[in-house]
Amino acid sequence: MLTLDYANCLSPRVGPHGLDPARVHPDGDQAKGIAALTRQLNESKGTGWERWRTLADEPMRSLHLNAIEAITNECEGRFDNIIVLGIGGSALGNIALQAALNEPTYNLLPKADRPGPRLFVVDNVDPSNLNSILKLCDPKATLFNVVSKSGETAETASQFMMIRKILEEAVGSRWAHHIIAITDPEKGTMRTICDQAGITTLPVPEGVGGRFSVLSPVGLFSAATCGIDIKALLDGAQAMDQRCANENLTENPAAMLALLLVELGTRKGKTNHVLMPYANSLKLLGDWYAQLWAESLGKKFDKAGETVFTGFTPISALGTTDQHSQVQLYREGPNDKVIGFIEVQDFGDDQNMTIPTGMGVEAIEYLEGKRMVDLLNAEKRATEYALIDSQRPNYTIKMPKIDAHHVGEFIMLWQIATSYAGLMLNIDAYDQPAVETGKKATFGLMGRAGYEDWLTKVNDTLSETEFVI
Amino acid sequence: MLTLDYANCLSPRVGPHGLDPARVHPDGDQAKGIAALTRQLNESKGTGWERWRTLADEPMRSLHLNAIEAITNECEGRFDNIIVLGIGGSALGNIALQAALNEPTYNLLPKADRPGPRLFVVDNVDPSNLNSILKLCDPKATLFNVVSKSGETAETASQFMMIRKILEEAVGSRWAHHIIAITDPEKGTMRTICDQAGITTLPVPEGVGGRFSVLSPVGLFSAATCGIDIKALLDGAQAMDQRCANENLTENPAAMLALLLVELGTRKGKTNHVLMPYANSLKLLGDWYAQLWAESLGKKFDKAGETVFTGFTPISALGTTDQHSQVQLYREGPNDKVIGFIEVQDFGDDQNMTIPTGMGVEAIEYLEGKRMVDLLNAEKRATEYALIDSQRPNYTIKMPKIDAHHVGEFIMLWQIATSYAGLMLNIDAYDQPAVETGKKATFGLMGRAGYEDWLTKVNDTLSETEFVI
Repeated sequence: MLTLDYANCLSPRVGPHGLDPARVHPDGDQAKGIAALTRQLNESKGTGWERWRTLADEPMRSLHLNAIEAITNECEGRFDNIIVLGIGGSALGNIALQAALNEPTYNLLPKADRPGPRLFVVDNVDPSNLNSILKLCDPKATLFNVVSKSGETAETASQFMMIRKILEEAVGSRWAHHIIAITDPEKGTMRTICDQAGITTLPVPEGVGGRFSVLSPVGLFSAATCGIDIKALLDGAQAMDQRCANENLTENPAAMLALLLVELGTRKGKTNHVLMPYANSLKLLGDWYAQLWAESLGKKFDKAGETVFTGFTPISALGTTDQHSQVQLYREGPNDKVIGFIEVQDFGDDQNMTIPTGMGVEAIEYLEGKRMVDLLNAEKRATEYALIDSQRPNYTIKMPKIDAHHVGEFIMLWQIATSYAGLMLNIDAYDQPAVETGKKATFGLMGRAGYEDWLTKVNDTLSETEFVI
Repeated sequence: MLTLDYANCLSPRVGPHGLDPARVHPDGDQAKGIAALTRQLNESKGTGWERWRTLADEPMRSLHLNAIEAITNECEGRFDNIIVLGIGGSALGNIALQAALNEPTYNLLPKADRPGPRLFVVDNVDPSNLNSILKLCDPKATLFNVVSKSGETAETASQFMMIRKILEEAVGSRWAHHIIAITDPEKGTMRTICDQAGITTLPVPEGVGGRFSVLSPVGLFSAATCGIDIKALLDGAQAMDQRCANENLTENPAAMLALLLVELGTRKGKTNHVLMPYANSLKLLGDWYAQLWAESLGKKFDKAGETVFTGFTPISALGTTDQHSQVQLYREGPNDKVIGFIEVQDFGDDQNMTIPTGMGVEAIEYLEGKRMVDLLNAEKRATEYALIDSQRPNYTIKMPKIDAHHVGEFIMLWQIATSYAGLMLNIDAYDQPAVETGKKATFGLMGRAGYEDWLTKVNDTLSETEFVI
């Protein structure tokens, strides 16, 4: 199972930039406060916006696994490509699962060597990006997985309108058979469209917000289609969920992670939270984390209505690559960061990949006969040392192996840590009020009826000036 | 040409979180100071560590273009794959150029539809990542482009040792013909290896540091091999260089960009500097920028030897994608950021990609018949508006079109802005002392002779503790 090593966040290692070990002591006041929060979260589990926390449990688990299996069986062999149309929470999880759990060359492999069709996730309305992918994929052999709870997100709606037309031209009346929509099970624009056209759907379950939806059909369907073991993913998530129901701070990794980051952030000014896996395939889990942490905790008002402008800036990095650039800043720039490493202990079939001997060049002779994984993890340990040498707090999540079970643990760890952090900061971790202004302004600029005032406001505010070079 | 619109960094738009327009006025004190810095930079151009600034000028320009052309001609048609082995400054530029200037589906296209071999950049020692790529690429049909000034960077050295053996097994004594090394023209471990084995080389020019090397053979060779117009890239860089020799602040985009970011950073506490292109293909230019800005300006000591812990935290984002997550934080979190947009005005062949009509659903009817590019840029404008509404400073770099010329301008803009920022902060923008500790600790952990003390230090510092869950 995943472990969290947080010694390097404490003052014995990083001096005044770390937390006093008393603050994380199992008998301390913080631990008592955390126990109360854990009881609160154990009670709210499965209610309101915390219904994501039951996605790995029965009955949701079997409901979704069975529904997904029925569809993937039905689709098997029919498609060379699956294109996910979604954005934000409807895309980042899908991308992260694919990157973590399939080979980086997945789309380039011959069909027989791949456990599923090629996967593309189109999470933007960049016309060149969309066009390149559409040119490559014959619509006759392509499944489109549209993910939108409401169907009104402008990006996904416009993509959907495009592919519907392309499909109609390619396969005529069978166009709806090339679409699986993941949407609200009962209401909304996409629901209506699907019902009218006979499009097969899977649910965005009630009470599961976009950034907490990766363990629902939103993330699971494309993963299963590409051969990812989604049962193991949910098993891992469930195992972590159980660990994080523990009232004892020093046995609850999500509570500890949240406490460390919130206290280092609010008491020690470490408001930039870097996640730096030492494994290429986990880099995009960093982007998933960045969405979760930024959008959940970046809030103007607390629950008492006070203006707080709280939140932390998540940063996705990659070891060893970013050692050769960002670490200069992390060590010598402002001491405003906590660096989170992910260390992988077993790279499976590639664990024994070894640097050959017989090069005969003295300066690099020390590398001969060494395993590449040992070099990778030595670099990580060296960076950890270098950060401590500069009194920069850091922690390590150890992942025994990169597989669906451990990735499921990782996802649940951060989702629950986010819940704790929301409680600690006394803010609503589940809303996103600041995103709405941009949506309305977009409606205004695009000429949607009823939003004319927004067009005026935007154009008045952004009138041309002389401040252009 | 590129333009910089900075109205949204000023107090009329964002109140006390912006700069007083007097501080950027062409007759003000700042402008006089900037004029002095410009004279200084115009004099130091081409000397010391500022020799990167002449890469687009004669005689360096022709020297490199001719040498690269000779090799690409020689290699043409021989290879199905080119694999770049390098890290940090020897990789990020290559990745960024490919992403910006070739299609996202480049590696997936049939050979006849691609202007060059498939490109892979291996910038890490993750064994699974390397193995996946090596499994995919037949070494007989693969060109390896090794980029290392010294040849002693552990990551690149170990990769080189591996591919040398693989090549020897695949093509015997002709192994050296499958390698193009970009390295020091005169000295160093890689130089010796290449001379002994008869490996063709291109220079890492003297006085060109890793993060300033993308316009040297380091970045140009793989780009040219993949059909990118490197002459146009240098033309664009040169054009920007000339604009940035202008002593008038309000006519010099690099000077203005540096002044804005440094003043907002040091006087207004906006130390997180986001770069958010509204174009998928420019996202990885954001990673290139992040290396440049972080490593150049993140410094403990100023030139007077005072401890300053200066620097800014660069963050690479993507519009519209990150509107659906990060913008919540950017608007409601701590007001500690400057958001830099890149807006593309012409998407070329894809400019008129239009959302179809006839969907017949009222809620999304406003999108019918609209061009996708207009939706993309409306979202950008809406986000700009939303940020101003929350008093968050931001600026826009307008790129008329994504092509080699404009990308060349963009690269030079940021490189020169970095020089200015180094002078304004009174730090050395060209060193990276903090990266050395990690390298030495790695040597110790990997058993390199002479580094035994480092092994002891690391193991003593990182001894096991009870702080693990």
